[in-house]
Formats: sequence, structure tokens, C-alpha cells
Amino acid sequence: MSKGITSRTDNYSQWYLDIVKRADLADNSAVRGCMVIKPHGYAIWENMKSALDQMFKETGHVNAYFPLFIPKSFLSREAEHVEGFAKECAVVTHHRLKNDPNGSGLIVDPDAKLEEELVVRPTSETIIWNTYKDWIQSYRDLPLLINQWANVVRWEMRTRPFLRTAEFLWQEGHTAHASRQEAIEEAERIHEIYARFAEDFMAMPVIKGRKTANERFAGAEETYTIEALMQDGKALQAGTSHFLGQNFAKAFDVRFLNESNQEDYVWATSWGVSTRLVGGMIMTHSDDDGLIVPPKLAPLQVIIVPIPKPAPELNEVAEKVMRALRDKGISVKYDMDMKNRPGFKFAEYELKGIPVRIGMGMRDLENNQLEVARRDTKSKSMVPIEGIGDYVRQLLDEIQANLFQQAVQYRAEHMTEVNDWKTFTEVLEEKGGFASAHWDGTTETELEIKEKTKATIRCIPLDAKEESGTCILTGKPSQGRVLFAKAY
Amino acid sequence: MSKGITSRTDNYSQWYLDIVKRADLADNSAVRGCMVIKPHGYAIWENMKSALDQMFKETGHVNAYFPLFIPKSFLSREAEHVEGFAKECAVVTHHRLKNDPNGSGLIVDPDAKLEEELVVRPTSETIIWNTYKDWIQSYRDLPLLINQWANVVRWEMRTRPFLRTAEFLWQEGHTAHASRQEAIEEAERIHEIYARFAEDFMAMPVIKGRKTANERFAGAEETYTIEALMQDGKALQAGTSHFLGQNFAKAFDVRFLNESNQEDYVWATSWGVSTRLVGGMIMTHSDDDGLIVPPKLAPLQVIIVPIPKPAPELNEVAEKVMRALRDKGISVKYDMDMKNRPGFKFAEYELKGIPVRIGMGMRDLENNQLEVARRDTKSKSMVPIEGIGDYVRQLLDEIQANLFQQAVQYRAEHMTEVNDWKTFTEVLEEKGGFASAHWDGTTETELEIKEKTKATIRCIPLDAKEESGTCILTGKPSQGRVLFAKAY
Repeated sequence: MSKGITSRTDNYSQWYLDIVKRADLADNSAVRGCMVIKPHGYAIWENMKSALDQMFKETGHVNAYFPLFIPKSFLSREAEHVEGFAKECAVVTHHRLKNDPNGSGLIVDPDAKLEEELVVRPTSETIIWNTYKDWIQSYRDLPLLINQWANVVRWEMRTRPFLRTAEFLWQEGHTAHASRQEAIEEAERIHEIYARFAEDFMAMPVIKGRKTANERFAGAEETYTIEALMQDGKALQAGTSHFLGQNFAKAFDVRFLNESNQEDYVWATSWGVSTRLVGGMIMTHSDDDGLIVPPKLAPLQVIIVPIPKPAPELNEVAEKVMRALRDKGISVKYDMDMKNRPGFKFAEYELKGIPVRIGMGMRDLENNQLEVARRDTKSKSMVPIEGIGDYVRQLLDEIQANLFQQAVQYRAEHMTEVNDWKTFTEVLEEKGGFASAHWDGTTETELEIKEKTKATIRCIPLDAKEESGTCILTGKPSQGRVLFAKAY
Repeated sequence: MSKGITSRTDNYSQWYLDIVKRADLADNSAVRGCMVIKPHGYAIWENMKSALDQMFKETGHVNAYFPLFIPKSFLSREAEHVEGFAKECAVVTHHRLKNDPNGSGLIVDPDAKLEEELVVRPTSETIIWNTYKDWIQSYRDLPLLINQWANVVRWEMRTRPFLRTAEFLWQEGHTAHASRQEAIEEAERIHEIYARFAEDFMAMPVIKGRKTANERFAGAEETYTIEALMQDGKALQAGTSHFLGQNFAKAFDVRFLNESNQEDYVWATSWGVSTRLVGGMIMTHSDDDGLIVPPKLAPLQVIIVPIPKPAPELNEVAEKVMRALRDKGISVKYDMDMKNRPGFKFAEYELKGIPVRIGMGMRDLENNQLEVARRDTKSKSMVPIEGIGDYVRQLLDEIQANLFQQAVQYRAEHMTEVNDWKTFTEVLEEKGGFASAHWDGTTETELEIKEKTKATIRCIPLDAKEESGTCILTGKPSQGRVLFAKAY
């Protein structure tokens, strides 16, 4: 509490807000529901972007950029899509302000009303498929494998930094294919990339599954999802990849001549992950002392703190250590600040989640060693200066692996198979995590369960075994278990 | 003309549009004034971003992200700023659409009117300085050296792809300092970075100068600019860096305690370059056969074309050549397409501005050589396969240098010192380029010259010598020459 961080057991929700604020990740803004992403938070997002972008490019995708605005009429073209997005969008109606002739300051100029209102994109399927119409004539123009890094706006009523904000940053992939099968394979390929990114970079284990019809993206035939589990037992949808069938091609009349010279509608996918991942990372690893960032995403991996403060002999060794670390591809900084004491600095770096801290005093140098502290376990070791590069390289890998293992274990402990309603509600209410249960497959039952427990079906896991059973609510027959959880 | 490109001498303006379209750089969109940046155009912008971002980070800047929306009232806070931007902005007035109860489709829901309208950012000084207020209390919190990569919207009436669009992509730096001197140095440092980027990466020579009071950014005390010259003799403002004094700090009440424990307003800079640079690059180098991209910005530097088409022996050598090139840090692709003929491919790659093309036929291989063609001069050489990596590495450097030299020469030929009104108007009307002339220093004269000639003062060059003379229009005394030109 000395750091101004509520403990997780006291109030997880407040703890989260405290971490976001105290670790300098984001700040509130003057605009309702919009956040300011501060440099430390943005640097983490940049590292996420860079890793994902590389994975997309390695699989043949290219980036492009489509307009921020979508003509109102485009939204109506796809029936489910408009249902999903029209109720929460920012609408541009005018293109000029002017000084009120009555002197009440700046007002909207009524003469500058747009003929057709524009919506700030909540997602870009409509504007992109309207464009693809001009780009696709024949199978030779396919596939189009395009991604865009952009901001989008959804007028959410209840917002939380990173997890749910009116404006957020994301990538949205929009691909066009000549066959149903190829589009499905694309959606699955991206689903796999998302899962690999979450586990390898964020050290956040995820369950890969399909969404129920009710939870699908507005306009999709199939939505693949990766679902993570936060420390408070709530699930987080961390990324989705949609097979859109021919819905948007039909809505925007995008046809092509296939190899047999026959006309057909184009097949589509779309997929996205957002700054929400930063929230998922926070709630997977961090503790009551502050943020914990997996080394692969850390803007700064190692901080060297001179004890008690910078001095020529210490600075010289620090330079040497930094060179050794940088040679191993490690990012490192030496704290040259003269004003604050080591204890204060230690707390600050802990707060910001720097994975490794190296303390360096005169006595350590006499013994040719350094004190190396890891952020995840807080354990410290005295380490010879000779070979420090290799040591830290290995330590960072170990931290990355340890964070993943801890999260895997937590999830294993919070994955409960349940077969009766009473246990089901108890698990959801008290223990938290995923309840693996039978469901009769109807949206009606799904909604009734949500109504009674606030839990939703997070996904039908891809690796679910076929297993006969009876629905947890209705007792009707079921062919397999699905995962229920309360979710962000 | 066979490529569908108007020649530059026939119609430069149409030539530009043809290049943008035929080189697959951008496309029109359904939204007035907004363009779609296609993958090839976006890849060039990505390379620009990446080089600039590194230069910013090397000089201590960090990235962050501020909201897309600005409350209407914020714009009014800085008097000149509101004058500059209120007349051309996208205004969000509602947050919901709904189905018209009268059945006429989707309409704006009158119940979802915002209490205060939001403007889509035309630039972010106001929202950022409103945020800085919370971040700055003491000199210890300074400097803040923050940059943001973002989209902005200015409701331009006459748009041209890349050069002037309603929405565009850019970076905007916003820094806060404890002293006037430090802020001026920052604005100058960025000015220098912009000039270095333009010349070293874009191979586009620029003149560094200051804007006149009339041409300054709305709210700035000094605007530094880099001005380039396009092939049609018109100037292009390619980047600006502003010393904002204490204007925004006063407008948003951002005060701090300095080292002497006295309260003062914070000093500011802001600076930006945008996707407009892609337009500048096009108009500096390209020719009637298509785009020319400087090697340092080329998404693909080398294309290998098998003649007449892929075959096992050719493919094997291509693999070897690609490895040799990649070892030298060169990006390269082998054209595996079986359908089109080499001549068609050559024209396509020329159109897209790939700096180097390697042609490879069976007879060439028998002689252990390859045909290497450069895009800039169109010259071809037979080059031994042995040592091809070094050869191409050097050739790319030579192309980069040659493009810069050509542009420097063109500019030198279009930099005319003029001392009388008749020559002045003739130069502007017929020869084009910069007219270096004396001016009496008043906005009145500046505007009258613009009225009479359509030329503006592009800048007061930093390296202008002191020289007594008489104003080109009024004959009043002047202490130095300024540069006039018609401009984009």
C-alpha cells in the first residue's frame, strides 16, 4: 500500500486501475471513455505490434490503410453488421465550426451539414469490401491478404483502460479468397498465430476455440477465439479471427471469375487484436508491487542501479556490463540519476515491471560480482561480472518461461469439469475460472444461463473431445463440453 | 502512353495522378477527400516511419498516443489556433444511429446528441497540453519529449492523393521544456532531423528556413520549414517544426516550479511530417515510365526475372543470388510467375519503381553472368554472378546518390536570383522554381505579391546572407532575400 497500489485480494478491479496509473501505462483523458496511452504503455504496445506484424508478413500479409470514416449507408448493407455496430458509434454530421453570431463562442455551423453522415469506423469490413469491389475481377486478383493498423471507435458506456475504451488501437486483417476452403484455412492460420503470439510473447496461455452462434462477430459464419484467464478468475477474449463466408461480398457485390471462368462471390475473413492485450498482460502476471512484463515485450529488459549513486568506478563497469548485454541483444539502461536513493529506485523499477535489476556497489566490484534481482520471483543472486551477458540472457529466458508456467498452472487449477447445476453455479460464484460443462446447443439455453449466472460460453474448444452428456441447465442431450466463465 | 501514363510535359498534374494509380500507391475512396493507401504506397510510408522513428528515439523521444477526439471548447482556448482549424474540421455530434421509425433506413438518433461536440483532431496541441497540465509540476518533470504516430483530419475542399487529403497519416511531436532556449533548440534539432531524413533517405534536397509570420503555424512563435522543389517547378513544404513559446501552456494553464522554486509557464514545441512526403518523393524522382523510389525507401530493392520463365536451373541460381544479396542486407524477390512474359514484367517493375532488376536467362548462366538494369538511368550491364552481392550493394548506393544529385542539379537550375518585378513575374510564370528576391518584411506586401503572382514566401533561408536591397514589389529597403515560389 505504500506504493499506492490496492492489494489484489482487497479489490482486484481497483488494483488493476492502480497498476495502470502507478506504472505509467495510461491516463484518463478529457474525452469520455478515451484514454491517453503513456510512453511506457505505448512502448509495450509497440513491441506487441512489431512481433505480430512480423508474423503477419511472414505469412504473406501486407499492410494498407483505409479511411477513418464510413458512410452511414454502408453500415446498413450487411444486416447483422448494422445490428452489431450502429448503436454505439461516433457520428460526424458537420464539417465546420464557426463563431456564434450571438457571441456564445464556437458553434457547429448549420450550413456545413454533411449530405450523408459519416461514422467513425468501429471496424472496417464495409469500407474495405466496398473498395475490394474495384480491386477484384478474376481469381488472378486473389487472394488479397491485407492488414491495417488503425484506431477504431465504439461508443462503450462502461469503459476501463485498455480493456474497453471508446477509442482503441488495433490491427484488422481483411482477406479475400477464391474458395470457401481457402478462407477457412486463412481464418485458422491467423487463429494459430494469435495463440502463438499470446503464449510465446505475452506468456499468456490461451484456449483456442470457436464461438457459439450467439457470440459470433456481427456478420461472421464462424468466429475463432483465443480465451485467456485473468488472476481474478475471469476470462478475457484476447483475439478473434472470423470466417465471413460470402456475406460481405454479397452485401457489396464483389464477384470474380473463377478458374473455370464462372462468376462467384468472393470469400472473406477478418481478424483483429487490440490494445486490450496490454490489459490481458497486466492481469496475467502483475502483483501487488506493480507491473510484471514478460521479457520479450519489455521496453527495457535490464536496469543497472549504482549503489548508492553514480561514481566514476561504477560508471566504468556499468559501461562494460551494458556492452556485454547489448551484444546479446538485451536492452539495458544505467540509472545516472543522482537525486534518489537506491531503495526508491528499486521500488520504481519494480512498479514498472523491468524484468531484471542489477545492483552495483563498490564492495561488489571488489569481489568482481553484481547483485542480479529478478522481478517475477524477487529472488536475488550474486553473479560474477565475467560472463554476465550469458547469465542475463539465460535469466530473461527463464523469467519468460516461468511467467508462462505460473499462468498455465493457475489456469489448470481454475479449469473445473462440472456436471450439475449446483456445482456449476458454485464454481462460477466462488472459485472462478472456466467451468467445463455440457450444453444443449441452443441460444435460448445459453442466454438463460447467462441471465442466471452472468457467465457466458467463452468457446467450444477446438480440442474438445466428443462426449455424450446432458446439458447443465436443461438436461437435454449434448455431444460435448463447452467452457463457461464470467468474462471481461 | 502505352502504360496509361500521361507524359510530364503534356500534363504534370495528370501524370502525378496516373503514377499514383498505375504504381498502385493509392486509390480513391467512397469518402470525399479520403484516400485508400494501397500496400505498395503503405510500404513506402512504413519505411519512412521506421527511419524517422529511429531518428526520434536516438534523440531521446518516446512515443505515446492521445485521443482522436478533441472537445470543441478546447479549440477555442488558443486564439490563433481556433482561427486556423475550426473552419475545416469533422464534427462528431451524436453517438448512435437507429432505424427510422418511418422506415427510411438508418438515421441519427436525436436522443444520442452529445452534450459537447467533439472535433476529430486536425492536430493535437490542445488535447495534449490539456493532458500535460496533469503531468508537469516541477522542472524535474521536464523535458517531455513525446511523439505520436496518428491519423488527423482537415476538411480540405481540394484534395490530391498524398499531397492534400481530408484524412492523412503523420507523426506529431509535442515537447515541453523548462526554458525558452531549450525549446528553441529542440525545434531546431527536429528541423535538422527532417532535413537529414529528406536528403539521406528520400534523396530529396531541401532548403531549411523560417516561415514568415503570415505563413506560421496557428499558435507558433516561429515555424521552421524544409522546402523541396518538385519537377514542375513548384515548391513543396515537406515538414515543419514549431517553437510555440508559452502560448499553449498559457491557454491550458500549464505551470511548473523551476530550479529557483519560482512558478513559470512551460515552453513548447510541436513538429510533424506526413504521408505528404510520399507525394514529394514521387514528384522529385519519377518519370514517364512510372515511379522511381530511392533504394533506402524501396519496399523491394531488387527483382530477379527469369527469362523467359522459371525453370529448375534458373531457380537454383536465383536462390544463390538471393542469398548473396540478403547477406548484404538487400531486399530481393524472385518472380516465379509463369503466366506473363518478361517484357510485361519489366514494364510492371519499372512502373512500381523497383530500383534494380536482374534478368537471368540460360545463355547468361552459361557465361556466369546476369543482366543488371537500374531503374533511375535505365542503363544495363552484364555482371559476373561471382561477387553479385557486393556489386548490387554498391549499385544501390550509387542510385541513391545519383537521384539526390539529379535533384540537387534540377534545383540549382531553378534557383533564380531576381532584382526587378518583371523578371520576378517571368521567372514565376515561365521558368518556375524558387525566385530569390528582396522583400520589405511586411505581411501586406507578402499578400499583395501572392495576389498578383500566386507565389508565396516559402521561407527565409537559415543560410541567407545579410544583404541590403530593395523590395521586389514596393522598392522599400530590405536586409536580405527570401525565397518565393508557387507551391503545392
